[in-house]
Amino acid sequence: MSSSLVQACVAVVGPSNVLVDAADKQAFEQDVWGRYCGKAALVARPSTAEEVSKIVLIAAEHGASVVPQGGNTGLVAGGIPDETGRQIVLSLSRMNRIRQVEPRGDFVIAEAGVVLADLQRAAEQVDRSFPLSLGAEGSCQVGGNIATNAGGLNVLRYGMTRGLILGLEVVLADGTIWNGLRSVRKDNTGYDLKEIFVGSEGTLGIITAASLRLLPPQRDRQTVWLAVASAEAAIDLFAAFRSHFGDLISSFELIHSNGVELAVEHLEGCRRPVSDRHLWHVLIELAWALPTGLREQTEAFLAQLFEDGICEDGTIAESETQRLNMWRIREGQSEAARKIGVVIRNDVAVSIERLPGLLHAMEKWTKAQDSDILFMPFGHVGDGNLHCNCLVSPDAVEEIEPRLLEALYDEVTKLRGSISAEHGIGRLKSNSMAKRKSEVELRLARSIKQLLDPSSILNPGVIFEAREREPAASS
Amino acid sequence: MSSSLVQACVAVVGPSNVLVDAADKQAFEQDVWGRYCGKAALVARPSTAEEVSKIVLIAAEHGASVVPQGGNTGLVAGGIPDETGRQIVLSLSRMNRIRQVEPRGDFVIAEAGVVLADLQRAAEQVDRSFPLSLGAEGSCQVGGNIATNAGGLNVLRYGMTRGLILGLEVVLADGTIWNGLRSVRKDNTGYDLKEIFVGSEGTLGIITAASLRLLPPQRDRQTVWLAVASAEAAIDLFAAFRSHFGDLISSFELIHSNGVELAVEHLEGCRRPVSDRHLWHVLIELAWALPTGLREQTEAFLAQLFEDGICEDGTIAESETQRLNMWRIREGQSEAARKIGVVIRNDVAVSIERLPGLLHAMEKWTKAQDSDILFMPFGHVGDGNLHCNCLVSPDAVEEIEPRLLEALYDEVTKLRGSISAEHGIGRLKSNSMAKRKSEVELRLARSIKQLLDPSSILNPGVIFEAREREPAASS
Repeated sequence: MSSSLVQACVAVVGPSNVLVDAADKQAFEQDVWGRYCGKAALVARPSTAEEVSKIVLIAAEHGASVVPQGGNTGLVAGGIPDETGRQIVLSLSRMNRIRQVEPRGDFVIAEAGVVLADLQRAAEQVDRSFPLSLGAEGSCQVGGNIATNAGGLNVLRYGMTRGLILGLEVVLADGTIWNGLRSVRKDNTGYDLKEIFVGSEGTLGIITAASLRLLPPQRDRQTVWLAVASAEAAIDLFAAFRSHFGDLISSFELIHSNGVELAVEHLEGCRRPVSDRHLWHVLIELAWALPTGLREQTEAFLAQLFEDGICEDGTIAESETQRLNMWRIREGQSEAARKIGVVIRNDVAVSIERLPGLLHAMEKWTKAQDSDILFMPFGHVGDGNLHCNCLVSPDAVEEIEPRLLEALYDEVTKLRGSISAEHGIGRLKSNSMAKRKSEVELRLARSIKQLLDPSSILNPGVIFEAREREPAASS
Repeated sequence: MSSSLVQACVAVVGPSNVLVDAADKQAFEQDVWGRYCGKAALVARPSTAEEVSKIVLIAAEHGASVVPQGGNTGLVAGGIPDETGRQIVLSLSRMNRIRQVEPRGDFVIAEAGVVLADLQRAAEQVDRSFPLSLGAEGSCQVGGNIATNAGGLNVLRYGMTRGLILGLEVVLADGTIWNGLRSVRKDNTGYDLKEIFVGSEGTLGIITAASLRLLPPQRDRQTVWLAVASAEAAIDLFAAFRSHFGDLISSFELIHSNGVELAVEHLEGCRRPVSDRHLWHVLIELAWALPTGLREQTEAFLAQLFEDGICEDGTIAESETQRLNMWRIREGQSEAARKIGVVIRNDVAVSIERLPGLLHAMEKWTKAQDSDILFMPFGHVGDGNLHCNCLVSPDAVEEIEPRLLEALYDEVTKLRGSISAEHGIGRLKSNSMAKRKSEVELRLARSIKQLLDPSSILNPGVIFEAREREPAASS
């Protein structure tokens, strides 16, 4: 690392916001899952878009590159520096102001470093809701959510993060600050530039603030647990719920019996919501803004389902405790599994009607292996999003994981699905993506990268394999 | 027009699908509103993406350019050739197959030339709904809807066309066919390329087919007409409805008294839904997929509104006849106005809470003019989208229209709104846009155009001012 690089950064953000000591940098150099560890030249912590711009220009002058980082909760190492020790980690954490909350206009303007849970709370204070919700919401940041087009628990109803964005403020590779912080809902004046930056994982620009939609809160919610005999039956059940309740469905989660039994056995106080064992379970949440009336509608529909023999067993949560128990199974099954082995995780999507085919193919694959593999898939049925997770013994994981992911990604590609439904590409999946995308798509994507970041200053090595870059003459 | 160009096109699509006679070309050279008229070298009507690709390559070889055209219902002359007589109109009308309808996967794959109403019907046949709905749905085509990111009547609930797209098939400027016809709902594998083509008005690629979301149909619908004293009160009313009904609101239309009275006076059988005159009227539609229950919820809420004195007068439609009468006022006010003068139309958007300010500013402007101007604005409140229309005498329109639009666009720009909320830019608004967009945005947009269409083959003169182009050596 060059001392002129450090000095230049210190001149912009002050000495306390340039971290150079190994101990200070460490938390920014590895992901919270401990799966990837890089090495940074330094960590810079700007507090304004102007400071971000200056750091980007300094990086360019010194032949360095910039790795934007939010709450560092990503799953594909998209916010972690490479191993060269020449990259600048640009932490957006100090840009954590909520600039405006406008309940009548139904929008909020937040800086990139605002923690998602803080944004949710700011919305609640004006009787509105910001519907993006995911496991890491207590530490992930809005800028990272946008840069990765985060999904989460409410995609079926509200879409991915992309659909919640009204405007962006972005620092470009040449240091230009683009102020696109509109709060208008309809704007067909030429190309919609913000769409280019959403989900680009910091490789096309650095998002410093966003104007985001607010929604009315849901006041009446019903949580239902149902058991069915097959994945096909679960898809039929989704179609039946979808026809009857339309867009009132907030969640429709499919869970394999193996995951349910692991949770019930290993998580304290966790109980199976239905008395008997069944091969597949479904967790459904219905909600609306009206204060009452949904319970009656739910009960009447379930009575009809049981009368028609469409599902085997099931119940409506009678209390918040029962509701939380249902979600504890869904969310805690991986935690339970880790008590007896290692979970191989993944995140794929296919068109909804193809989910059973994918599940059968992968179950067959696991059974054909020599090792013991416990198949414990779960997914968001309405999104076609499946986590085809498998529990294996610690000594088998290294051998099985790459083969399982290859088999899964090949199967998904055959079904014209996605090998990364919501987690993104980052550093970990760039090879897997490059192998499976069409030449046309790869060429288009690379040309956009080349257009917006010709000197490869912004997060090189993420999405695409890193290119070697000559150090600039001045460094 | 060169005969070699005609011959080359005939070799691709056959003689009956290359129109060269003036009488045959005429319908493709002017918009249905008779406001813009160009001149085409020829009209080519391909029936496959491969044929589209070949026509694009032929255009390139002959130094010609291509104007993609759908149902020709656009309002900004984005699908009309310029006056040089050197452009090829590429009509997508023969690409009108619905390739797949998948109710369990909730998607449909349709070619660009499918008429919107036909797509809606195909969805209805499998108990699903394609929610894009607009006045021209009987003749506009899906490809045009996507290329212009069409809005319409259901934006508040379902968003613009952009939000309904799962995948695209696009012919690029170099003739490459990009098959991005995915039907997966979540895909974070790198840049979302389809977003670049949506709303690009045929200037970046030619959309030949799309994979589109289907939704469950709404089975219970309540239509409400309310009268309020001010635009501010209408915004408050929207906030109250939004808080109570959340995303169950499908439409929330604001109509000025002038438009209501014109409709009631000049449209046969049209009656004002409330007995007294009021300054502002609101037309609200609530809907859900459930078969019953919405009437009770609506009545209870209205009773509370009247008790609290939040609105002055109002009624729920008791029959389909009453409902259609309400919509006839909303949709027919311009038709009524045209019986006694000329309507100056426009299509702007601001953040919702800024709507009253914009309305006051524009009413003040109309009153300050020497001519008689009847202010008859209406809009989609929930979208912040306003048509600040004005009725003037035929001999005054030429003098007033450009000044009114300038004043309106300046006011909207001051409020950080959009000068074209849903109609697009086309040929008619490129100057107005260029004057008001920031230098950064214009530069970014032009660089994307340059990247994807370096030889300016795709719809030059639309969105951006046309550049002069040298004829290719081979022509």
